[in-house]
Amino acid sequence: MNTSASDAYAAETLSEEAVDALTRASASTLPPGAHRHEALLSARAANIKQSAVRDVFEISMQPGLVSLAGGNPYLQSLPLDRLAASASAIIATHGLEALQYGGGQGTLELRTQICQVMAAEGILDADPENVVITAGSQSAQDVAAKVFCDPGDVILIEDPTYVGALNTFEAYEVDVQPVIGDEHGIVPALLRERIAALQAEGKRIKLLYTIPNFNNPSGVMLARERRQEIVDICRKANILVLEDNPYGLLKFDGVLPEPLRAANAEDVLYLGSFSKIFAPGLRIGWALVPAHLKQRFYLASEAVTLCPPTFNQMLVSDYLNNYDWQGQVSTYRALYQERCTALLQALAEFMPDTVSWTKPEGGFFVWLSLPEGIDTYPLLHKGIDAGVVFVPGAAFSPQQGPSNKLRLAFSAVPPETLREGVKRLAPVLAEAIAGV
Amino acid sequence: MNTSASDAYAAETLSEEAVDALTRASASTLPPGAHRHEALLSARAANIKQSAVRDVFEISMQPGLVSLAGGNPYLQSLPLDRLAASASAIIATHGLEALQYGGGQGTLELRTQICQVMAAEGILDADPENVVITAGSQSAQDVAAKVFCDPGDVILIEDPTYVGALNTFEAYEVDVQPVIGDEHGIVPALLRERIAALQAEGKRIKLLYTIPNFNNPSGVMLARERRQEIVDICRKANILVLEDNPYGLLKFDGVLPEPLRAANAEDVLYLGSFSKIFAPGLRIGWALVPAHLKQRFYLASEAVTLCPPTFNQMLVSDYLNNYDWQGQVSTYRALYQERCTALLQALAEFMPDTVSWTKPEGGFFVWLSLPEGIDTYPLLHKGIDAGVVFVPGAAFSPQQGPSNKLRLAFSAVPPETLREGVKRLAPVLAEAIAGV
Repeated sequence: MNTSASDAYAAETLSEEAVDALTRASASTLPPGAHRHEALLSARAANIKQSAVRDVFEISMQPGLVSLAGGNPYLQSLPLDRLAASASAIIATHGLEALQYGGGQGTLELRTQICQVMAAEGILDADPENVVITAGSQSAQDVAAKVFCDPGDVILIEDPTYVGALNTFEAYEVDVQPVIGDEHGIVPALLRERIAALQAEGKRIKLLYTIPNFNNPSGVMLARERRQEIVDICRKANILVLEDNPYGLLKFDGVLPEPLRAANAEDVLYLGSFSKIFAPGLRIGWALVPAHLKQRFYLASEAVTLCPPTFNQMLVSDYLNNYDWQGQVSTYRALYQERCTALLQALAEFMPDTVSWTKPEGGFFVWLSLPEGIDTYPLLHKGIDAGVVFVPGAAFSPQQGPSNKLRLAFSAVPPETLREGVKRLAPVLAEAIAGV
Repeated sequence: MNTSASDAYAAETLSEEAVDALTRASASTLPPGAHRHEALLSARAANIKQSAVRDVFEISMQPGLVSLAGGNPYLQSLPLDRLAASASAIIATHGLEALQYGGGQGTLELRTQICQVMAAEGILDADPENVVITAGSQSAQDVAAKVFCDPGDVILIEDPTYVGALNTFEAYEVDVQPVIGDEHGIVPALLRERIAALQAEGKRIKLLYTIPNFNNPSGVMLARERRQEIVDICRKANILVLEDNPYGLLKFDGVLPEPLRAANAEDVLYLGSFSKIFAPGLRIGWALVPAHLKQRFYLASEAVTLCPPTFNQMLVSDYLNNYDWQGQVSTYRALYQERCTALLQALAEFMPDTVSWTKPEGGFFVWLSLPEGIDTYPLLHKGIDAGVVFVPGAAFSPQQGPSNKLRLAFSAVPPETLREGVKRLAPVLAEAIAGV
């Protein structure tokens, strides 16, 4: 066992025995030059791809750039000194619990508090027994795909939708199928048609994944009057609704529409998160699971992470217990409203006439549409040259190919910087439009 | 949208339309009384089951019981006051970073430090570029199964092996196949035979999952002289070795055998964890991935959790930077050795002659064998009646059916309590043996 042995192994050509084993192990012939381990990859591995948003996340750290790319919450308004004291007290007085393994479903204290958070979001009947704490709501999306989807099964999505969900679903070889919406979200009649068409093709539709409040990336809010009808359509087609609501509390005016889950305990699996209302760096989200599905969801979640981090759960519990977290949400609402307004004003001032955009009532994002025929992906690097970063629209769609859309995030950027970013972006778009 | 509507929906018989949709959606007929959502479950969902260890974890919290069940590290020896101060300082001075989203692979600082930890474990050539930080090593096992295994693919395992890995692999419909070992771990000749037999059946073998140091649950250490041969056998059969080494540093005498990964950078995917050498409640583990597989592993990990918790990574980094973590490992070694010795002495004193057990040189566990024909699962409740909890052996085997083995964990229990636990357990086993 000396270290030079590994080099020898790496360099050796495959023995006859190895080639024989490889041939048996691999269903298909490897392309020339491929590593022999390529034969070991699962079919789903080919579907696991780089997120364009995460790509841009790295780029947007470059100094001097105005980043309108990352949907980061603005943490400067958190009471850091008091949180520091809380973290210290938790370890000093409850360290043996905080640093130890915990239950796979999460602490009862935090699950109980999460039910209070959900009450503020408009869900009044949540039972802590049916809450499963997850590594952000991202992990809850992963578990949902795992529990419900065989390869080729369909998850219906809004187009555009959250890129992280697309990546997660595609990692399970899900057939992600878009549902057409408008400026008020999914259109019930079109949803009904889409379901019928897919069923006529023999597709097995398992879930409708939706971000009804301030969709990432579009910023669109699903109209109140469509909500129950959408759940009804899904229930009748035996499709479970996967409602992702990280931004729901961040409606600028604080007048929240009822979640799809509110009156539909049996037909909606609801995902929530502390990433946007408290701190994403703790990675604490949750799923409120229909009672009859809870045990399966919980066990699948446990099989991924064993248990959520105890210390982080206790920190969130302490924050909810000892801070005016609803006051902090109000602070965020005012802050994000101010930024959204500044962004919309700058867009009105600087953008070419043929560019249009959404006017969100909450959340983090504005969605721009350029004239047909323009692909925003190559404009990303022109934008960077001009000192501004955005996320090209193609990232948020399961369909390959060019997109004339792009996402701007206002959450982490002060008003004057938003204005500067738009000022830099406008000539890049104008030039592209002029060149069509 | 009133709340009584949901009750009405729950009670209603299925409409013709729904039955129609259900029939199309479901490949098989549902059993009578099944919820219509059962038709939505994936094939893999049926494989996701409750871990007997986690079951026992709940029971073992009852006051008055001596728990020899849970493999919890003994955290009392950690410098909690100093850790509290560190946590506070991180939030107070770097809170905007600690509480924010981070990169999907983990921080470069911690990945660099992890390479130093692995150097202490016997891996001298690790590159931070190939380290992916995960939610404990559990999550790394999940990602490995996801990236490499299609349904029906084989993962070879030691029998017995870690129950959490079994649950994780089975959640991907993996065909988990045991390899026979002895008191020195996997026997190379038997591994070779097993591979040949499975290949002759047309099975696609993807991974060998092994805990070479102080296997959970058996406590067995793989003999030094078998290590390279095992990697060689796997390499020749194009099987990737998944080496899980959470206990490696906890060899009582501190004289560590080289990990399988040490001289085999290309053929071993190595999993490490801070759960046993620092604190499981932070859920920070890692994978050291062969360079040619790193990008796929990293993207799959990102699709599950987006990023590991930034604050937790900074806490671990601070611990590694500012504490004598190797001194703490030495403290743990002495502590666990003392406990292991106490457990072995008590077993020698109290156990019936026909019970035998392993004599671990490190780790957390001792594995007991009762005479053939005895099933330890029904003894669990008799043990609880007698005031002692253990984990029945069946949990650690992919084969269904009774097991005459059981696991005792000494890590979290002081010597005198270990003695008391064994004293309570011995008559339960003696009675069972007498009754055969």
